Amino acid sequence: MAKLIDGKQIASDIREELRKNIDLWKAEGHRAPQLTAILIGDDPASGTYVKSKTERYGTEITEEQLLNRIYELNNDDAVDGILIQLPVPNHIDERKICNSVSCDKDVDGFNERNIGRLCLDMNTLIPCTPLGVQELIKRAGIETFGKNAVVVGRSKNVGMPIAMLLHADGRNDTCAMDATVTICHRFTPPEELKRFCRTADIIVTATGVPGLIKSDMVKEGATVIDVGITRITDAATGKAKLVGDVDFDEVRKIAGYITPVPGGVGPMTVAMLMKNTIIAAKNLAKKRNAQ
Amino acid sequence: MAKLIDGKQIASDIREELRKNIDLWKAEGHRAPQLTAILIGDDPASGTYVKSKTERYGTEITEEQLLNRIYELNNDDAVDGILIQLPVPNHIDERKICNSVSCDKDVDGFNERNIGRLCLDMNTLIPCTPLGVQELIKRAGIETFGKNAVVVGRSKNVGMPIAMLLHADGRNDTCAMDATVTICHRFTPPEELKRFCRTADIIVTATGVPGLIKSDMVKEGATVIDVGITRITDAATGKAKLVGDVDFDEVRKIAGYITPVPGGVGPMTVAMLMKNTIIAAKNLAKKRNAQ
Repeated sequence: MAKLIDGKQIASDIREELRKNIDLWKAEGHRAPQLTAILIGDDPASGTYVKSKTERYGTEITEEQLLNRIYELNNDDAVDGILIQLPVPNHIDERKICNSVSCDKDVDGFNERNIGRLCLDMNTLIPCTPLGVQELIKRAGIETFGKNAVVVGRSKNVGMPIAMLLHADGRNDTCAMDATVTICHRFTPPEELKRFCRTADIIVTATGVPGLIKSDMVKEGATVIDVGITRITDAATGKAKLVGDVDFDEVRKIAGYITPVPGGVGPMTVAMLMKNTIIAAKNLAKKRNAQ
Repeated sequence: MAKLIDGKQIASDIREELRKNIDLWKAEGHRAPQLTAILIGDDPASGTYVKSKTERYGTEITEEQLLNRIYELNNDDAVDGILIQLPVPNHIDERKICNSVSCDKDVDGFNERNIGRLCLDMNTLIPCTPLGVQELIKRAGIETFGKNAVVVGRSKNVGMPIAMLLHADGRNDTCAMDATVTICHRFTPPEELKRFCRTADIIVTATGVPGLIKSDMVKEGATVIDVGITRITDAATGKAKLVGDVDFDEVRKIAGYITPVPGGVGPMTVAMLMKNTIIAAKNLAKKRNAQ
């Protein structure tokens, strides 16, 4: 039976470390790191545990109005991190919005320049979910060097950056994991997906397809990280519940390590947002002092 | 016996198409696309077949002097493409130099923002060698959709962008190839490299390790693209010669398609530099007209 990777506990430990880190920072005379989150429409905000301000706008906000607000926040020395809840309404160009956030305050890591820096293994703000997956793997003590990893899903905000962090050179700034990485996606034939997964030491799945990863696709003792989150109706209770991409009950009998959904990668994403905000605050303070 | 992918011939065809393209462009009243190449030290320049100007500097040039010259070229409307021959001397920060080239004139595609755009499947100037590999695969009529590809080598200017172009979504701006991609590198155990290669429909190798890819690592009928170029001394003749990563004489007996070294990917890189310069010239003209 697989050992459960308790993302909730690990995230809680990290938040505790980060809180101490903030206390030290404040003891040196700095203000608390400050995140501003922009939400458009009715999506509920997720708790972030950084000192954060949430600005809510109706879906009628124009692209220009949103860009102007981001511009103000970019130039506001009281703001360290800017988060734009995605997706934005259809009449707004998401890429333009992501690129308008100052690279220094881009705690989501979605500015194309920060994506470039990540892919070049450079010091940068890394998107929170990929960073959370990396941290989870490291804190669970999973060996990755020279191991076989499979990433299922090639999305630009999750699958692609995870593949980057898994395969790249650990000696560079992103502290990547030196695994041999196979990127599978919707056009990978099912029998090939199975074959790649069966020889993987680590499977990271981020597709949003419930039950995609079954027990006959997993090597005994492998690590299975489930980034998928899909809301389904439980057939037994009729109630809504969250499930991942992995057939959890069966796969846990085979795997060596497994993350639950919820309580696996999700809490790590939130903790990494806090981490990125602290990194941004410190870098910005350093820049201001250097002027 | 494998069919030879004649990079020299394909590149020559492409250059002919591009020349016609330039003639049409000039017939519309535009000047010829203009590339400026900066060479530092004694490296011989490679012929580029675009109207190009080569500026040579001694290795004593300072970073500031080089940055100033790039700044001038960025602002010179008579220049469409800027190429900095890499590597630069040790006292110059290569990343800073690559980032100083205007994204619009970055025909090498090494500005971190252009790398980000490539990794996001966005319309951008793509590094010449990866673009040449993509073009070679397409023009040779090799099917990639849902196929297994292995990229050997994870360098940021060759292996990584090729993996990106091979695995990503063909419906996006980079016209990527929708293959399942495994990235192998120096820390992939030899027996695993062999196993991945043996099940690959396409192998692209870019390591600079002569003879790395042997015939017992290749599936019958597979496509083998050799990006490696290493200068060795021929044991028989005592003369210098260029070899790739592939044990060509043996692998060609097994593979379905194979590129020679020299005369495979090399000529494509040069043709893609011409292509990128034309793309840059047209985009810049459009931008100037829009002002």
